[in-house]
This record gives sequence, structure tokens and C-alpha cells, in this order.
Amino acid sequence: MTLVALASIVTAGLTTGFGCLGPALSEGRAVAAALGSLAQQPDAAATITRTLFVGLAMIESTAIYCFVVSMILIFANPFWNHVIAKG
Amino acid sequence: MTLVALASIVTAGLTTGFGCLGPALSEGRAVAAALGSLAQQPDAAATITRTLFVGLAMIESTAIYCFVVSMILIFANPFWNHVIAKG
Amino acid sequence: MTLVALASIVTAGLTTGFGCLGPALSEGRAVAAALGSLAQQPDAAATITRTLFVGLAMIESTAIYCFVVSMILIFANPFWNHVIAKG
Amino acid sequence: MTLVALASIVTAGLTTGFGCLGPALSEGRAVAAALGSLAQQPDAAATITRTLFVGLAMIESTAIYCFVVSMILIFANPFWNHVIAKG
Amino acid sequence: MTLVALASIVTAGLTTGFGCLGPALSEGRAVAAALGSLAQQPDAAATITRTLFVGLAMIESTAIYCFVVSMILIFANPFWNHVIAKG
Amino acid sequence: MTLVALASIVTAGLTTGFGCLGPALSEGRAVAAALGSLAQQPDAAATITRTLFVGLAMIESTAIYCFVVSMILIFANPFWNHVIAKG
Amino acid sequence: MTLVALASIVTAGLTTGFGCLGPALSEGRAVAAALGSLAQQPDAAATITRTLFVGLAMIESTAIYCFVVSMILIFANPFWNHVIAKG
Amino acid sequence: MTLVALASIVTAGLTTGFGCLGPALSEGRAVAAALGSLAQQPDAAATITRTLFVGLAMIESTAIYCFVVSMILIFANPFWNHVIAKG
Amino acid sequence: MTLVALASIVTAGLTTGFGCLGPALSEGRAVAAALGSLAQQPDAAATITRTLFVGLAMIESTAIYCFVVSMILIFANPFWNHVIAKG
Amino acid sequence: MTLVALASIVTAGLTTGFGCLGPALSEGRAVAAALGSLAQQPDAAATITRTLFVGLAMIESTAIYCFVVSMILIFANPFWNHVIAKG
Amino acid sequence: MTLVALASIVTAGLTTGFGCLGPALSEGRAVAAALGSLAQQPDAAATITRTLFVGLAMIESTAIYCFVVSMILIFANPFWNHVIAKG
Amino acid sequence: MTLVALASIVTAGLTTGFGCLGPALSEGRAVAAALGSLAQQPDAAATITRTLFVGLAMIESTAIYCFVVSMILIFANPFWNHVIAKG
Amino acid sequence: MTLVALASIVTAGLTTGFGCLGPALSEGRAVAAALGSLAQQPDAAATITRTLFVGLAMIESTAIYCFVVSMILIFANPFWNHVIAKG
Amino acid sequence: MTLVALASIVTAGLTTGFGCLGPALSEGRAVAAALGSLAQQPDAAATITRTLFVGLAMIESTAIYCFVVSMILIFANPFWNHVIAKG
Repeated sequence: MTLVALASIVTAGLTTGFGCLGPALSEGRAVAAALGSLAQQPDAAATITRTLFVGLAMIESTAIYCFVVSMILIFANPFWNHVIAKG
Repeated sequence: MTLVALASIVTAGLTTGFGCLGPALSEGRAVAAALGSLAQQPDAAATITRTLFVGLAMIESTAIYCFVVSMILIFANPFWNHVIAKG
Repeated sequence: MTLVALASIVTAGLTTGFGCLGPALSEGRAVAAALGSLAQQPDAAATITRTLFVGLAMIESTAIYCFVVSMILIFANPFWNHVIAKG
Repeated sequence: MTLVALASIVTAGLTTGFGCLGPALSEGRAVAAALGSLAQQPDAAATITRTLFVGLAMIESTAIYCFVVSMILIFANPFWNHVIAKG
Repeated sequence: MTLVALASIVTAGLTTGFGCLGPALSEGRAVAAALGSLAQQPDAAATITRTLFVGLAMIESTAIYCFVVSMILIFANPFWNHVIAKG
Repeated sequence: MTLVALASIVTAGLTTGFGCLGPALSEGRAVAAALGSLAQQPDAAATITRTLFVGLAMIESTAIYCFVVSMILIFANPFWNHVIAKG
Repeated sequence: MTLVALASIVTAGLTTGFGCLGPALSEGRAVAAALGSLAQQPDAAATITRTLFVGLAMIESTAIYCFVVSMILIFANPFWNHVIAKG
Repeated sequence: MTLVALASIVTAGLTTGFGCLGPALSEGRAVAAALGSLAQQPDAAATITRTLFVGLAMIESTAIYCFVVSMILIFANPFWNHVIAKG
Repeated sequence: MTLVALASIVTAGLTTGFGCLGPALSEGRAVAAALGSLAQQPDAAATITRTLFVGLAMIESTAIYCFVVSMILIFANPFWNHVIAKG
Repeated sequence: MTLVALASIVTAGLTTGFGCLGPALSEGRAVAAALGSLAQQPDAAATITRTLFVGLAMIESTAIYCFVVSMILIFANPFWNHVIAKG
Repeated sequence: MTLVALASIVTAGLTTGFGCLGPALSEGRAVAAALGSLAQQPDAAATITRTLFVGLAMIESTAIYCFVVSMILIFANPFWNHVIAKG
Repeated sequence: MTLVALASIVTAGLTTGFGCLGPALSEGRAVAAALGSLAQQPDAAATITRTLFVGLAMIESTAIYCFVVSMILIFANPFWNHVIAKG
Repeated sequence: MTLVALASIVTAGLTTGFGCLGPALSEGRAVAAALGSLAQQPDAAATITRTLFVGLAMIESTAIYCFVVSMILIFANPFWNHVIAKG
Repeated sequence: MTLVALASIVTAGLTTGFGCLGPALSEGRAVAAALGSLAQQPDAAATITRTLFVGLAMIESTAIYCFVVSMILIFANPFWNHVIAKG
């Protein structure tokens, strides 16, 4: 039982900790590109901002997959529930 | 039985955590390129946006493969079911 | 038997998780290049889009090889079947 | 019980420590891009600043996911509570 | 016998998972270069497309070597057959 | 008890030591960009400086998350308190 | 005997899996350069294509060395034959 | 007791040794950018120098966090004090 | 005896697998440079092609060193022969 | 006692050895930037030199933190003193 | 005796396998530079070719050092001879 | 006693071996920048040379810190002296 | 005795194998720079060639240090001699 | 005694092998910069050559520190002498 708890804790932490690396870097890149585009073509601000927000939402979704897996492992872990039920 | 649970938990977390790195970076790159293109050629906004969305869908598909494998390992794991059925 | 299950679970996860890194990055690069080309030469949009889709299909094929190997390891694993049949 | 405490401590620290890497780098990139844009197009300062703040908030959110997971592991850890309740 | 099965499973997964990294990145690079060339010289579209397809076929061949080795290890593994025959 | 102390010490150190890497690099990047912008557009010094300070504060916040987690682990560690109370 | 089989399996997989990384990346680079050259100098298409094919053949040869070593290790392994003959 | 001492020594060293990497690189970058800006716009020397010093102070603060944690671990370590008091 | 066989198998594979990485990348670089040069200066095609072939031969030689060492370790291994002779 | 000595020796060496990497690279960067600036704007030599020296002093300070920690661990180590006093 | 054989086999392979990486990459770089120079200044072909060959010879020498060490370890290993003589 | 000697030997070597990496790279960078500056602005040779030498001295100082720590560990190691005195 | 032989073999191989990486890359860089310079300034061929040869000799010297250490460890190893003399 | 010999052998090799990496790369960079400068400003050949030689001497000094430490560890190792004297 202890091992299942251990694995859940460590995996939940690593999944979120590591899985946020990519989205964070990506969002930084997208925001930086948006700012550069705004400086280059201020007239297209509306289109740029709209595209940026759609893009950020798509990228954020991968961070949310990781966060969801972590929350499942902490609060709705079927293996842990099985072990608890059995113990 | 514990070992199978352990492996499933750790693998599910790592697959999603690591597998989201590539799609996240890729989507960031695609969005950044789209924003740069919009700033450079605002007239082609329709084509650019359409191509961007098709591309984001293709890239997101690889993130979804990883998420699917994680969900299979947590909620529909044949090895775990076999072990439960046997135990 | 437990060891075979363990190896199958871990390998299935890692193969998909790691094997999606390359295709994801590649598709991001291809989409980014397509968007840049569209901005530079809007008249060639048809050729660019067609080439992009053929290329994305080729790249996606390597992600699918990995996904296929994972699915074989989870649902049609000859080693596991042999062990089950024997047990 | 000791093992659960150990895993919680180490994971909490690593999740925050590692998970802040991406957001920090990203925010630096976004701020740098904003400053470059301001120097290039001072007239668009209002739009640039607004976009920057929205972007920083999105990026900060991934750092906050990590911080939340760490706080949950330290102060609201269901596995630890279960072990305490049982002990 | 278990060890041979383990090694076959893990190696098959890693060979495909890792071996697809190179071809995927390469194809992305080739497609990106093709798109850039199309934008730069639309008149040479026929030559560019033909060269691209020959090149993609060559690159895909290295991914196929890896996939073939994985399939041999899973379905036509002489070491496993020997062990089975002997067991 | 010793193990809990060990884990707390090591994690506290690593969290701060590693967690400062990202913010430090980011702040350096932001400051470098600010200096470049000042040289390019001295007239916008007020806006640039203000944006820089807001950005540095945001980036510093991730370093502070890490420092806070370290301080919690050293001086307000619930696991350690529990072990002390119990011992 | 098991150990020799294990080593052969793992090494065969890794040699092909890892050994294809270099040739794949190289061929991608060569194809990309060829496409860029075609776009820049369409008149030299014949020379470029011929040089490309000779180059791809040379590069492919290193991938074939790796594949040959893998096939030798799987199907014509002198150490395994010795062990079988002796067993 | 020995283990607590060991962990404190190693962590104190690593925290400072590793934690200085980021600030050092950052300060180098900031100074390099300042020098480049001075060469480009000597008239703005006052603003550049002032901004540089504020930036260096901010960056230095992350190095000081690490140094503080090291000093706490060596000279004001609550775990060590507890162990001493108990021994 | 088994250990000598193991070491020979693993080393032979790794030497070829790893040793082909450098030559493959190098040949790709050389071919890419040749193609770029052909596009830039088609008149010097003869000299360029001749230099390319000499260069590829030199680079290929390092891959052949590795292949030779692998073949020696598999088919003409003095340590293995000694062990066989002794056994 | 031996373990405390071991840890002190290894940590002292690593802290200085690793901790000098960052400052050294940084100072090289700053000096290189200063030389480039001098070549570009010889008239500003006084300001550039002064800024360089202040910057080098700041960067050197992080190397000195590491050196100080090493010296404390070798010559004024409270843990070692405690162990000696106790032995 | 077995250990000495093992170490010799593994070291011989790794020395050649790893030691060829540098020379191979270097020769590729030199050949690429030569081809670029030929395209830029066809009149200096004689000097360029001569310098290239001298340079390739120098670089090849480091690969040959590694190959020599491998051959010594396989065919003229004093430690192995001593062990054989003694056995 | 043996362990203290071991640790001192290994640490002394690694500290110098690793600690020279940074200064060496830095000095190379500084010298390269100086040479580039000389080529660009031969009239400022005196200032450039003087700044270069001051900079090299600062960078060399970090290499000397590492060398000093190594020498202390080999020839004036307090832990070793204590062990000798006690033995 | 076996251990001393092992360490000498492995270290000799690694020192040469790894130590040739730097010089090989460096010589490639120097030769590439020389070729580029020849193409840019054919009139300075004499000075360039002379400087190149002096530089290659300096760089080769570091490869020779490594080769010398390897040869000492294989053929004039004081530790081995001592062990032989004692045995 | 064997352990001290082992550590000395391995450390001596690694210190030289690894410690030559930095100086070798640095010298290559410096020589490449010198060659580029010569091509750009042939008139300053005397100053450039002189600065290059002083710089190479400084860089070589760090390689010599490593070589000296290796030689001390092989031929004048105080720990080994102590062990010999005692044995």
C-alpha cells in the first residue's frame, strides 16, 4: 500500500512539474511573437490578438492534460481505491 | 499486483508529462509563425488562420495519442484486469 | 508473469511518449514553414497546402508506427499470450 | 509512514523547483520581446503592455499549477492523511 | 525465458520509439525546406516536389529499418523460438 | 526521523538552488533587452523602465515561490512536526 | 545462454535504433540543401540531383552498416551458435 | 547524526555551487548588453548605467537566496540543532 | 566465457551504432555544402564534385574504422579465441 | 567521522570546481563585449572600462561565494568541529 | 582473467567508437568549408585543396591515435600478456 | 583512512579538470573577441590589448581558485592531517 | 592486481577517446576558418598558412598530452610496476 | 592500497582527458578568429599574431594545470607514498 502511495505522489508531482515546462516555454514564445508582430504591424492588432488567444488556449490544453492526470492520481486513483477497499 | 499498479501509475504520468512536451513546443512554434505571417501579410489572414488550425489539430493528435495511452493504462489496463480477475 | 506485464506497460508508455516527440516537433516545423511561405508567396497557396498535407501525412506515419507498437504491446502481445496460455 | 513523508517532501520541492524553470524563462522572453517592441514602436505602448500582461498571466498560471500541487502535497495530502488516520 | 521476453519487449519498444526520432525530424526539415523553396521559386514546383518525394522515401527507409527490427523481435525472434522449442 | 530530516535538508537546498536558475537567467535576459532598447530608443526610457520593473517583479515571484517552499520545508515542515510530536 | 540471447536482442535493437539517428538527420539535411539549391538555381537541376543521389547513397551506407550488424547479431551470431552447439 | 551532518554539508555546497551558475551567467549577459549599448548610444550612459545597477541588484538577489540557504544549513540548521539537543 | 561473449556482442553493436553517428552527420554536412556550392557556382562543378568525393572517402574512413573494430570483435576476437581454446 | 570528512572534501571541491564555471563564462562574455565595444566606439573607452570593472566585480562575487563556502567547509566546518570535539 | 578481457574489449570498442566522433565531425566541417570556399573563389582552388588535405591529415591523426590505442588493447595488451603468461 | 585519501585524490583531479573548462572557454572567447576588434579597429590596439590582459587576469583567477583548492586537498588537507595524526 | 590492470585499461582508452574530441573539433574549426580566409583574401595565403600550422601544432599538443598519459598508463604505469614487483 | 592506486589512475586519466577539452576548443576558437582577422585586415598581421600567441599561452596554461595535477597524481602522489611507506 505504501508503494502505491509513493508512486502516486511522485508521479503526480513530476507529471505537473515536467509537463508544465513545454506549455510554459511555448506560451512565452507565442506571446513574444505576438508582441513582435504588434510592433511591426499595429494595424493588425485585432487579428493578432485573436489568433494569440486561440493559440494560447490550444497550448494551455496540454498543460491541463498533465494537471488532470496529476489530480486523477491524487484524488481519484483507481489503484489506490482498490488497495484501500481491499485493505 | 502492487508492481503492476506501480508501473501503471508511473508510466501513465510519464507518458502524458513527457509526451506533452513535443506538441506544446510545436504548437508554440506554429502559433508564433502564424503571428509573424499575419504581421507580414495581413491580407492572407484567412488562409493563414485556416492552415494554422489544421496544423494545430494534426499536432494536437500526437498529444492525444499520449493522453489516450495514459487513460488506457489507468482505466482500461488489460494486465491489471487480468491480475484483479486472478487475485 | 508480473515482469512481462511490467515491461509491457512501461515500454508501451515510453514508446508512445517518447516516439511522439519527434513527429510533434517536425509537424510544428512544417506548419511554421508553410505559414511563412504563405505569407511570402500567397499566390502559391494551393501548391503549398498540398505539399504540406502530404508531408504531414508522412511525418504522422512515424508517430503511428510508435502508437501501433504500443497497442500491440498492450492488446496483442505474443509474449504475454504465451505466458497466460502457459499459466 | 516515513516513506510517504519522504516522497511528499521531495516531490513538493522538485515540482516547484523544476516547474518554475519554464515559466521563469518564458516570462523573461515575453518581457524581453515587449521591451524590444516598445523600443521599435513606442506608439503602440498601450496595446503592447496590455498583451504582455495577459500573456504573463497565462504563463504564470502554469507556475501556479506546480505551486498548487506542491501545497496539496505538503498540507492536504490524502495519502498522508490516510496513513495518519490509520496509524 | 522471462528474461528473453522482457528484453524483446523493451528493445522492440525502444527501437521504434527512439528510431523514429531521427526520421521524423528529418522529414520535417525536408518538408519545411520544400515549402520554403516553393515560396521562393514557384516555377520549379515539379522538380522540387519530385526531389522531395524521393528524399522522403530515403529517409522513411531508416524508420522502416527500425520498425522491421521491432517486428522481428516481437513476431520472429529466433532466440525466443529457441527458448520456446526447448522449454 | 533522520530520513525526514535528510529529505527536508536536501530538498530545501535543491529547490532554491535549482529554482533560482530560471529566474536568474530570465532577469538577465530582461535586463539585457531593456538596455538594448534604451540604447535604441532613449526617448522611451520611462515606459521601458516601468515595463522592466513590472516584468522583473513577475519573474522574481517564481524565485520567491521556490524560496517559500524551502523555508516551509526548513522551518514549518508539517511532516517533521508530526514526527517530533510523535517521538 | 540466456544472457547471450539477452545481449544480442538488446544490442541488435539499440544498434539499429541509435544508428539510424545520424543517417536520418543527415539525409534530411542533404535533401533540404538540395531543395534550397533547386530553388536558387533551377538550371543546375541535373547536377544537383545527381550529386544528391550519390551523397544519399554514401550516407545510407552508414545506416546499412548498423542494420547489417543487427542482422548478424540476430541471425548469424557466432557466440550464440557456439553456445547452442555446446548446449 | 552523521547523516544529518552529511546532508547539510553536501546540500550547502551544491546549493551555492549550482545556484551561482544562473546569476553569474545572467550578470555576464546584462553587463555585455550594457557595454554594447554604451558603444551604440554613449549619450544615454547615465540611464544605461542606472538600469544596469538596478538589474544587477535584482539578479544578485537570487544568488543571495542560495547563499542564505547554505548559511542557514551550515550555521542555523534546525534539524541539526534538534539532533544535537537530543543526543 | 559468457561474460566475454556478452562484452563482445554489446561492444560490437555500440561501436558501430555510435561510431556511425559522426560520419553520417559529417557526410550530410559535406553533401549539403556541396549542393549549396553547386547552386552558387555551377561552373566549378567538376572541382566541387571531385573535392566532395575525396572528402567523403576520408570521412567514410572513420566509419570503417568502427565497422572494422566491430567485425574483429565478432569474428576475430583474440580474447574469445583464447577462452575457446582453453575451454 | 570519516564520512563527514569525505563529504566535506568532495563538496568543497565540487562547489569551487562547478561554481567557477558560471563566473568564468560570464567574465569571458563581458570582456568580449567590452572589446567589441571598444573597437566600435573608441571614444567611450573610459565609460566602457569603468562599467566593465564594476560588472566584473559583481560577477566575481558569485565565484567568491563559492570559494568562501569551500573554505568554510575545509577550515571552519561546524559539523567536523562537533565531531572532533565529541570524538 | 575474464575481467581483463572484458575491460579490453569494451574499452577498445568505446575508444574507437567515441573517438571517431570528433574527427568525423571535424572533417565534415573542413570539407564543407572547402566546398564553400571553392564556390566563392574558384581561382584559389589549388591553395584551398592543398590546405584542405594537410588539415584532413592532421585531423585524421587524432582518429588514428584512438584506433592505435584500440589495436594495442586488442592485439598487444601488456596486462593481458602478463595475465596469460602468469596463468 | 583509505577513504579520505580516495576522496582527496578524486576531488583534487575533478576540481582542476572540470574547473578549467570554464576559464579556458572564456579566455578563448576573450582572445577571439580581441583579435576581431584588432582587425576592425587597429588604431585602438593599445586599449584593446590592455583591457584584454586585465580581463584574462580576472578569468584566470577563477582557474586559480580551483587549482588552489586542488593543491590544498593534496598537500595541506586538514582532514588527512587529522587522520594521520590520529592513526 | 586485476583491479589495477582494469583501471589502467579503461582509463587509457577513455583518456585518448575522450581527449581527442576537443582537439579534433578544434582543428576542424581552425582548418575551416583558414579555408574561409583563403577564399576571402587569397593574397594573404602565406601568413594564413603559417598561422594555421602554428595553431594546429598548439592544438595538437593537447591531444598529445592525452596520448602520453595513455601510453604512460599502459607501458610505464608506476602503480602496476609496484604491484608486479610486489606480487 | 589497491584503491588508492585505482583512484590515482582513473583520476589522472580523467583530469587530463576532460581538462584538455576546454583548452583545445578555446585554442581552436582563438586560431579561427586570428585567421579571420588576418583575412580581414592583413596589415595588422604583426599585432594579431602577437596577441594570438600571448592568448594561446594563457589558454595553454589551464591545460598545463590539468597535466600537472595528473603527473603529481601518477609520480608524486603523497597519499600513495604514505601508503607505500606504511605498507
